[in-house]
Formats: sequence, C-alpha cells, structure tokens
Amino acid sequence: MPQQQQPQQQPQQPQADIGLIGLAVMGENLALNIADHGFKCAVFNRTTETMRKFVEREKHPNLIPCETVQQLVAAVKRPRKFIILVKAGPAVDAVTKELLDAGAEPQDIICDCGNSLWTDTIRREKEYGSKCKFFGSGVSGGEVGARFGPSMMPGGDPESWKHLKPIWEAVAAKVDAKTGKPLENYAPGKPVVGGVPCTAYIGPNGAGHYVKMVHNGIEYIDMQLICEAYTLMQNLLGLEPPELAKVFAKWNEGDLDSYLIQITADILQQHDPIHKDGYLVDYVLDAAGQKGTGKWTSVNALDMGIPANAISEAVFARCLSALKEERVEASKQLSGPKAQAHTGDREELITAIRDALYCSKICAYAQGFQLMREAQKEYKWKLNFAEIASIWRGGCIIRARFLQKITDAYTRNADLVNLLLDPYFNDQIKNGQTNWRKIVSLAASNGVAAPAFMSALAYYDGYRSARLPANLLQAQRDYFGAHTYERTDQPRGHFFHLDWPEKGRPQIAIPVPEHREAMPTTERKATPKP
Amino acid sequence: MPQQQQPQQQPQQPQADIGLIGLAVMGENLALNIADHGFKCAVFNRTTETMRKFVEREKHPNLIPCETVQQLVAAVKRPRKFIILVKAGPAVDAVTKELLDAGAEPQDIICDCGNSLWTDTIRREKEYGSKCKFFGSGVSGGEVGARFGPSMMPGGDPESWKHLKPIWEAVAAKVDAKTGKPLENYAPGKPVVGGVPCTAYIGPNGAGHYVKMVHNGIEYIDMQLICEAYTLMQNLLGLEPPELAKVFAKWNEGDLDSYLIQITADILQQHDPIHKDGYLVDYVLDAAGQKGTGKWTSVNALDMGIPANAISEAVFARCLSALKEERVEASKQLSGPKAQAHTGDREELITAIRDALYCSKICAYAQGFQLMREAQKEYKWKLNFAEIASIWRGGCIIRARFLQKITDAYTRNADLVNLLLDPYFNDQIKNGQTNWRKIVSLAASNGVAAPAFMSALAYYDGYRSARLPANLLQAQRDYFGAHTYERTDQPRGHFFHLDWPEKGRPQIAIPVPEHREAMPTTERKATPKP
Repeated sequence: MPQQQQPQQQPQQPQADIGLIGLAVMGENLALNIADHGFKCAVFNRTTETMRKFVEREKHPNLIPCETVQQLVAAVKRPRKFIILVKAGPAVDAVTKELLDAGAEPQDIICDCGNSLWTDTIRREKEYGSKCKFFGSGVSGGEVGARFGPSMMPGGDPESWKHLKPIWEAVAAKVDAKTGKPLENYAPGKPVVGGVPCTAYIGPNGAGHYVKMVHNGIEYIDMQLICEAYTLMQNLLGLEPPELAKVFAKWNEGDLDSYLIQITADILQQHDPIHKDGYLVDYVLDAAGQKGTGKWTSVNALDMGIPANAISEAVFARCLSALKEERVEASKQLSGPKAQAHTGDREELITAIRDALYCSKICAYAQGFQLMREAQKEYKWKLNFAEIASIWRGGCIIRARFLQKITDAYTRNADLVNLLLDPYFNDQIKNGQTNWRKIVSLAASNGVAAPAFMSALAYYDGYRSARLPANLLQAQRDYFGAHTYERTDQPRGHFFHLDWPEKGRPQIAIPVPEHREAMPTTERKATPKP
Repeated sequence: MPQQQQPQQQPQQPQADIGLIGLAVMGENLALNIADHGFKCAVFNRTTETMRKFVEREKHPNLIPCETVQQLVAAVKRPRKFIILVKAGPAVDAVTKELLDAGAEPQDIICDCGNSLWTDTIRREKEYGSKCKFFGSGVSGGEVGARFGPSMMPGGDPESWKHLKPIWEAVAAKVDAKTGKPLENYAPGKPVVGGVPCTAYIGPNGAGHYVKMVHNGIEYIDMQLICEAYTLMQNLLGLEPPELAKVFAKWNEGDLDSYLIQITADILQQHDPIHKDGYLVDYVLDAAGQKGTGKWTSVNALDMGIPANAISEAVFARCLSALKEERVEASKQLSGPKAQAHTGDREELITAIRDALYCSKICAYAQGFQLMREAQKEYKWKLNFAEIASIWRGGCIIRARFLQKITDAYTRNADLVNLLLDPYFNDQIKNGQTNWRKIVSLAASNGVAAPAFMSALAYYDGYRSARLPANLLQAQRDYFGAHTYERTDQPRGHFFHLDWPEKGRPQIAIPVPEHREAMPTTERKATPKP
C-alpha cells in the first residue's frame, strides 16, 4: 500500500502504515527499508534524541517521528501494526506493555522482530492474547540485510499475517524466480523490483522465532566448516591468505556458492591496516565470540533428543577457541604429530577438502531440518520445509545456491524424513564421501582438529547403520540399573529385564513394573572366563 | 553412633538416628544399608502398605516403621536427620513441606538423596533455609550400590555435614587405603570393615548434586566409548561375543580396569534366555534410553561455554540410536564403504582400539573436570578435585582404577588446569595417540560410526593448538555483523572493527561502541580477484 510522499509532520489523523520501536542499527535500517518501499513508518525510541537525529539525518519523507509511545499509537492506522526491535528479554515485555498502556487495542498487531527465544514468543502470545495480536518474526541478514532486504520468518496468528504480509514481502530480500539467486541491489531509495520475496508465513506463535534460531545454529556450523577447510589447507598445503582467497572464490562458482564462502574469499585478500604487507586474517585473534543462538539450537536438540551433533560441535569449537591462554600453554606441553606437507597432487587435495566440506554441510542441514521436523510435532506446527529453505535463499547469512537444492528436495517430497534421503543429496554424498573420509583420516593422522567434519561423518555413518552398538549399552543399563531392554525378536514396546548373575553379588529382587516382562534368569553356559 | 539392637516398636522416646522417606528400591536399599551399619532408621512411605511389607519382609531390628510423617518426625533424635528418596522434581518440595508441617525444626537436616538438578537444590536451600537445613547429596551406584555401598556426594551447610558424616561414611562404599581398589562384600548384615569411605563433603548448596550430574555425564561417555570399541572389533575383526568378552576381560586387568569394562565382559558371555545357543547381546535392540542427567551435563557445558563435546556426542549417540526405524530405512538407501576385514595383526589392532579408548577416556574426564572447575567459579564453590576423584573409586558406576590416577594427579597439583596437562595422562596420550589416530582413520575409511573417539581426538588436537582457525570466524562475524575482533598484536580486551569494503554494497555507518576501536578503512591492495 504505497502512499504518496508527503512532507513529514506530526500526524493529525493516523497516517502511518506501521510503527517501529527501537532505533538501534537494526531498527533504523528496517525503518528505512520500509520507508523506501513507500510505507509510512512512524518511529519511536526511548531516547528521543536518537530518534530526532535519525529522522533529521535521513530526511526520508516516509518516516514519521514520534516522541512518545502515545504519539506512536496515535500515528498508526487501524488495525495498528507495530514492530519491536529491542534487546531480546524483559525489554520486549516492557515495550509491549507500554504499547498496551498507550492505547493499543485487541486487533492491533505487535510484532517482535528481535532475536527472541521462541518459547518466550509462545508465552507472550498467550499472555497478551486478549489485549493484542502478539506476533514474532525472525529477521536475518544483519544490519545490511535489514536495510536492503533481510530474510523474514514470521510466526503468529494467520489473520494478523494478512495485514503484515504486504510490508514483509516488500522489504524482504528478493531472489530470481527461476534460479533462486539473490537479486541484490544496495542503493538507498531504489529497492529491487520483482523477484520472489524471502519471507513466508512459518506457523503459529513461536514458529518464526524457532526457525530463525535453527537458521542461526546452521550458520554456526557453516562457519565452522569453512574454518576447518581453511586450517586444513593451511596445515597440509601451506597455503597463504591470497592463495586461499582464490580457492574460496573458485568454490563460490560451484555448488558451494554462498554468501559465507564469498565473504571468506573477500576476507582472505584483505590486507592488514597496520602491517600493510600482511593480511588482516593473520592478525585476528583466534578466540571466537558468540551471542547464544547456536547454543539455544544445541540445547533444544538435546531437549528433544535429536542428534544435532555437528551443530553442537560448532558451538563447542567456539568455546574451545575462547580458551586461548590455556591452549597456548597446552601447546607447549602436549605432543602430537607435525602436520605433514602434502606430497600428492595439490588440486586433488583441495578438491577432497571441498568435498569434505560439502558432505559435512549436507549433514549439518539434515540435522537442522530434522530438528524442525521434531519441533513441529512438539509444538503442533505444520512447517513447510520447501518454503523455509526457499526464504533462506536470499537476505540471510546462510543464503546459498545450496538452499535451492533443499527447496527442490522438499518440493519433490514434502514429507522427506531426512535430507540425506533425497536423491540429489544422496548422490552428492555418494560422489564425495571417499574424499570426505580421506580428509577426516588426514586430519586425524596430521593432528589437525576437525571436529565438525568428523562429527558430521559419524552422524552420516550412524544414520545409515541399521544396527548401532547401543544394544551393548542397553544391556549395560539393564545390568547396573535394571533399566530394561527391548529385543530384536519381539515387537517394540515390550521391555525385558534379566536378573544378571553377577559374580559375588547376591540376586537382589528388582520390582518389575507393569510394562516390563521379566525374563527367566538363565543358566550361565557362557564360555569359561579367561 | 551404633546402637544396641532392640526389637522394633513404635517409639515412645525418639530413638532413630535418621528418618527416611520414600521406599522405592533405592530407598529400601539405602535404609537397609544404614540399618546394617547399626543406625536406627525410621522409615515412611506414602503408601503405608509398601512400608509395612518392607519392614515385615526384612525384619531388620534397626528399622522403625512409621505410618505418618508425624510419627517419622517424632521418631528421630534431635537434631533430626531425614533422607528424602523420591522422584526428582515437585515431589521433593512436597515432602519437604510435609516434614516441616509435621514439626521439623530449623536445626533439623532434610537431605535430598535423589537425582535432583543442582539448581533446584540451590533454590531449595534458600527457600527452606529459615525452616530447616536443606541438604542435597548425590548417590551413585544404582540399587546394588545403595544396598552395599554407594559413592555419596554431599552438598550443603558444613555444620549439618558434621551430623550426617558418621552415617554417610558408614554406608558409603569402601576402597583400600593404599591401592584405591574397591573393597566389595555383598553379604546383607555383614558390611565391609575398614577401608576409606567413598564420600566427602563436596561444597555448599547444590555442589553435591552438581558433581553427581557430572559423574553421570562421564558415565554416558564411558559407556559410549566401550560401545565404539565393541563395534570396531565386530566390524574390523569380525569378533563374536565370547571372543569380545575375552578382550574386555583382559582389558579389565590393565589400566582400563573398571566396573563398566568388567560388566561388559560379563554381558558379552551371557547366553540368550530364548535362543540358548545365541548370545543375549545379539538380541538386545540397539535403541538406547536415557534419563536426562547426561543431557543436563551437556546443556550445562553449553551454558557455561566449556567444550565438553565428547560428552555431548555420547548423548547424541543415544539419540541417534533411538531413531531405529529411520536408520533401518536409511541403511537401504545411503551408500558407504563395506567395512574391510583387517588383514594385519589381530592383536595389534585390538591394542590400537584399546589405546583409542583409553586416550578418549582421558579426554572425556578432562572435559568433566574442566566443567567442574568452571562451575566452582560460577557458584563460588571450592571443589577438591582429588577428593572427588577419590570418592568415585568405589561404589559408583564409573568406578575404576583410572580414578586413582586422577586422584594422584590432583594430589600432585590441586590447581591443575586440565587433566591432559598432568604428566601421567600426558604420557599416556603420548604413548597411545598414534594408535588412536589410526583407529579414527580406520573408522572413517571403513564407515564405522565412532563419534566419541573422533570428538575426543578433535578436542585433544584443538586443545593443544596454540592457534585455531577461529580468527577467520571472527573476521566473518565482523564482516557481516560488525561483531568486532581482537588482534594478536594488541592486548586482550581491545576490540577492532573494519569497515569492510564489500563490493557492490555501500558503506553503512556502523556505530562504534565505547570498547571498540575503529580501524581505518584500508586501501584495498589485495591480490586481484581471480
């Protein structure tokens, strides 16, 4: 609903299409993005000065300055739509209550676009449900994304979505309808025209924020995989930043084409601002920070019992990197092989590392989508995985050609149990796995830490194992804790316990709960003890 | 405070040394253990019938039956001591409140011996602090341990500990003072005499339950490592259960001597009760259960930012095993190498697998102790790691000769930063790592999932790396999110940001927070783009 442009002024009649609270960099940029698309955006910030400076600096005809929350509420047309972009946590509740106190009504939509925990969004929708439509939307793409087109993952009441949709679709990143490639244009005031917007209704209550969290978990592992490829090429081939930049730039022309690979190539050719003949990356401290969303993804995987081990390894790799001083000390004391300069064909080894990265990446995404599949059961959502993959094709940090392949996979089969089972990905791993295994072996024998490559491989080999050694583990649990076991020759859901004839210990009567079928204590005809 | 034995009767005067609530199998067994050691134990259960049957069946002169909580409170001498052994969660609060309502007084000690989350224990100590001494004790060893000697990890008010100590030291498992080997004797009524008890004051409030949780996390990985050794010997050497039993029995004579290895040998020679010519382990379903304490450990590691990746892999391995039907289906579709029968020396390969297990085990314990080291900072405890290792030498599921080595390590150096840095363990890994690396390579090339072996190796190689590739990761974070980075040539705590000259994107003014030192945007003199 683009408006004619009018000089900004204090509104007599409500004239704003949407109101936005919170003018930190994300909020400012999203407001400008909205305004660029012809929507009148009323803006408010707790510190009025920040708001004034912003509006004065930008002089955008579609920005409507508001000095109080009351003014903001008065400025927006009914049903009112508000975006909250404040720090996740109590501030979101505080601002919501302020909006309600200032006159927001039950049909008004209050949309939290911050990095909130999805369970908070579920709680808030319930808590404020009678007073407003509380909505939660994931927004990915950092500040540049917010300004020129983020990937947006809205979750909440479907009726409310109808009101938000025109704005979301206008401001979201766009991809080419045919190829799925991002249509990028970063000129203020001249937004991309055409293309498919990177936003789609995700589901009720916390679904949008949940999917955004999984996006971030995947972002962690995507970055870790690149780091492992980088360190392997350094250690096994002795490549220097400019050579590495070329490798990543080349990878960016193939299946690995993605924002993160592209910026890696960019970063690796960046000279250092102090040591001008050196490269910046060599002077950056190897201690990673994190803001917690990767951790949330791992915790959620643990809570739901879904094997997202590679994603967790990426989180733990950051934790280990942060122990910089300990590592420096340990490096003097702990032994290990010196990485051997690779004597074979250099290009072959680079290709092998690329394959290891690509296969691991497939497993990492398989884990992320497996997580979402479980979450939709838990929260009674009905997620459209093809659509989720498709709105990640542009705008967000993990945007990649790869996501078109995932979109295709779930378009072929919406009920795909695991991404690994899709013919394309199955085939990719079939082609790449010899190299992947070779790289894991080389990492192990050369003493180069490659936790994510290894963990993804263990996941793949575990997932394709009809039989894992957990039978022994269940027998152990039954032995020491009478936890019971199921049997391969009996239907699932029948639990057995053996009165283990432990040497030297008396048989202790163990109460057998109803669901447990006691097995006779068997004669011990085992092979004689050695 | 052993008492003369008297016939059981309704007490006129308080005569019990301790009262116990909750007569499921753990409660019954612990009550008998206490009674066996000459303490009068008043017992109560919500369902009176259960209590009556128990007392009648056991006819133990030191058990005092109580039909109401009031009777229980009246039966115990001041300051009263109570053990709660009910399901972790709300039941613990309910029972505590009942004890208080029934007359428990501020000096009385209410000790939760269940598997409570340590943060609940911290909360409870505060909540009930004015009304009683709320205490929390981890108890490990399953039902047999409870009966004949568990490992006990008490946490709470140090004054209260003085009152509990005689009972705890009496009922706990004992180890030989010199060798640290468990003194095991499983004859009811005839407890072990002498030896060092496997209990020691851990610290205030939730410290006992915390340490118990880490014990369980370690138990998960100990079991997973055994499973990986088992499956590798099956896949690479084609060993059958009785041969495998011999291997584990032999390992149990060396450094790996432990309860879990011993019962593994026992389990592997157990014939199946139905298919009498087969082995039970081959009929046990490979879908592992879990009760959540391993998960808690992993979640806590993520929360504290400590790299306990191998422990998490053990939890995720159970999750993956539980997806039995999915795996069976995937095994038909996903390709991988057939495991190659090993053509080299059989004993050599078995030794290599043993070394891989032992090195991985050292890393797993290093992670567990690293976790406790961080937790003591977080919760202001002062943990005695030598003592913690020493009380795990007997009674509990992870009891092992190995724990004497850890006791020794922390006795040599109470402030040891990481177990890997202790000369003994450092040396063990030095000796074993070539084999360890070989086994990880073989697992990778043969398609056998070995997530814990691999993860532990990645941890080891990461920990001994003075430089990890997280520099690239930090540069990425600064590139897309302006998250800033530190520099190797500047002191820690100085954060820099580069205005990355991203091609095609305008420079966006990024606010520089106070702690951040803006770097000049440098001329881009990088190598030409390929």
